[in-house]
Amino acid sequence: MTELKNDTLLRAFLRQPVERTPVWIMRQAGRYLPEYREIRAKAGSFMNLCTNPELACEVTMQPLRRFKLDAAILFSDILTIPDAMGLGLYFEEGEGPKFKTPLRTESSIKKLAVPDPEDSLRYVTDAVRTIRKELDGSVPLIGFSGSPWTLATYMVEGGSSKDFKTIKGMAFENPAMLHHLLDTNAKAVTEYLNAQIKAGAQAAMIFDTWGGVLSTEMYQSFSLQYMQQIVDGLIREHEGRKVPVILFTKNGGQWLDAIADTGCDAAGCDWTITLAEARAKVADKIALQGNIDPCILYAKPERIREEVQKTLSSYGPAKSGHVFNLGHGIHPGVNPDNLGVLIDSVHELSPALHK
Amino acid sequence: MTELKNDTLLRAFLRQPVERTPVWIMRQAGRYLPEYREIRAKAGSFMNLCTNPELACEVTMQPLRRFKLDAAILFSDILTIPDAMGLGLYFEEGEGPKFKTPLRTESSIKKLAVPDPEDSLRYVTDAVRTIRKELDGSVPLIGFSGSPWTLATYMVEGGSSKDFKTIKGMAFENPAMLHHLLDTNAKAVTEYLNAQIKAGAQAAMIFDTWGGVLSTEMYQSFSLQYMQQIVDGLIREHEGRKVPVILFTKNGGQWLDAIADTGCDAAGCDWTITLAEARAKVADKIALQGNIDPCILYAKPERIREEVQKTLSSYGPAKSGHVFNLGHGIHPGVNPDNLGVLIDSVHELSPALHK
Repeated sequence: MTELKNDTLLRAFLRQPVERTPVWIMRQAGRYLPEYREIRAKAGSFMNLCTNPELACEVTMQPLRRFKLDAAILFSDILTIPDAMGLGLYFEEGEGPKFKTPLRTESSIKKLAVPDPEDSLRYVTDAVRTIRKELDGSVPLIGFSGSPWTLATYMVEGGSSKDFKTIKGMAFENPAMLHHLLDTNAKAVTEYLNAQIKAGAQAAMIFDTWGGVLSTEMYQSFSLQYMQQIVDGLIREHEGRKVPVILFTKNGGQWLDAIADTGCDAAGCDWTITLAEARAKVADKIALQGNIDPCILYAKPERIREEVQKTLSSYGPAKSGHVFNLGHGIHPGVNPDNLGVLIDSVHELSPALHK
Repeated sequence: MTELKNDTLLRAFLRQPVERTPVWIMRQAGRYLPEYREIRAKAGSFMNLCTNPELACEVTMQPLRRFKLDAAILFSDILTIPDAMGLGLYFEEGEGPKFKTPLRTESSIKKLAVPDPEDSLRYVTDAVRTIRKELDGSVPLIGFSGSPWTLATYMVEGGSSKDFKTIKGMAFENPAMLHHLLDTNAKAVTEYLNAQIKAGAQAAMIFDTWGGVLSTEMYQSFSLQYMQQIVDGLIREHEGRKVPVILFTKNGGQWLDAIADTGCDAAGCDWTITLAEARAKVADKIALQGNIDPCILYAKPERIREEVQKTLSSYGPAKSGHVFNLGHGIHPGVNPDNLGVLIDSVHELSPALHK
């Protein structure tokens, strides 16, 4: 393997000294880029993009050609695992992901098998290997998965949900059945992320998009417990380097202390908590990633720069421990030039904080 | 005016001693009740129900005939004010509320006038008077309004939103214009709630459904500041009784300390914070209302009873200061009998906590 030329991101995740705050952007490869929309149109469907390692590599690389980013992130979908379990993932225009056969019965849940990532998810590890070759040591590659709870919401509800009534009904009425599903998911995510790491992913992020709809007690029991199980089972060192693990529960600021106690290396934060408060909650045990509101990218360059400064200052002076990012994925309608302003501002303004 | 026979709710809001925890339910008059659906079908439209004081009174009374509730709440919509301002509220089946002429320009915002509640919103105060007569002192009547920020989200976005990009773009790019709109809304809400109080509402609740999508700084500046302005301008005593004011920011648990400092009497809580944590945050300065997940109503009676006990215990022993409620409105698909189980459980289990 080639040497990593820019390891700022990995050092920040491990709270080792850095010269400036590293930055990457959730959904940095995506619809806001005209060059992405072009490839997406040629591919015919979103899943055609994900399952073709050459195309997945191409769209992963696109934002790196435009912006001074400190990481690439694997282009994929969070629902590849349940698709590989046979639930039949499909997308309806403007409606989000859906499953042909949502899980509603004990027998369908008991039947689920943990997919072999080098078999039915081979297209993902192939994409990782292709991207690593293409990156040629320029920046690290982040692998990722949905959290067991977040995967389960789609698997049980059959798609996106507003109130999560089917899965919450199951949580209240038949918790053992739901725990069985979550345990299967946790095993699958562990194997999936370990396969990504073995294929070349240099950090692993778990997206818990829907953990924030739970009560504190239910979050602990149905979401965090299973992320903990994954953290415990992940390869933490590879190619002679630590592999940082990042947990991100959207709307989970109130639980950051518990998240820090899982043994992960970093936690994602959205903008509903200040980085100062978040840092106090995790007591500098782990690094923090985030947390500017993606809507800032509808503003003019001067305002973007101001908000970048506020976000950097909110984390406070530190040798390390902050990875700059949005608090959620970049919106499809954003002007890419505005993202350029944000990224350049992080490069210009952050070195002062690391002296 | 007749004497109030059951003032448990008002005493709990003011943290005066009570014999048991009072209970009412957000959206207790609504689609989950077959008798509501019958009247709604006859009325032809949701707004026909709201604008007809006799019908609004009838649906307000319906849940009180079924359940041992400690309050009635005015049947109305949170968007009556912008409708009275001329924005043209309409409902599309399965799509939520919309406005014909959303606000996008400085001139349209500057032109807005505070509606006279006894003129263009007369149907609301008439409903309050009709309901008070019908209640005949059995339980208190709660009046309500949307918060200035929440109203503004619909007025600017033109309806429901997933990412609030138009109004947040305005907040970043032209904050003065948005502050002008919010100030107009705050004046309108103050006059509207004061008119409801004069007409007979015995408590006033402000629903800040969308405050929780803001950052801490923006919440303070664009939502809480204007709720504070309303609290300062409300009639706090009427008919020889204190009129409690309740603020409810959905997903706002992290800001409960700031909410308590507005001088309101109580704060609503959703289930993403425990009542124990919420109580610590407000330092017993105000009462708390909530906070069970509405999805519990899909479970069986024994589970409902268990969760009621947990919620009561989470608030802890107290002479008063807790008003039992869901953490959000009851879902339309719930079996009304299950709500009966929840309400009866509060009656049975709470007296032990108030000895």
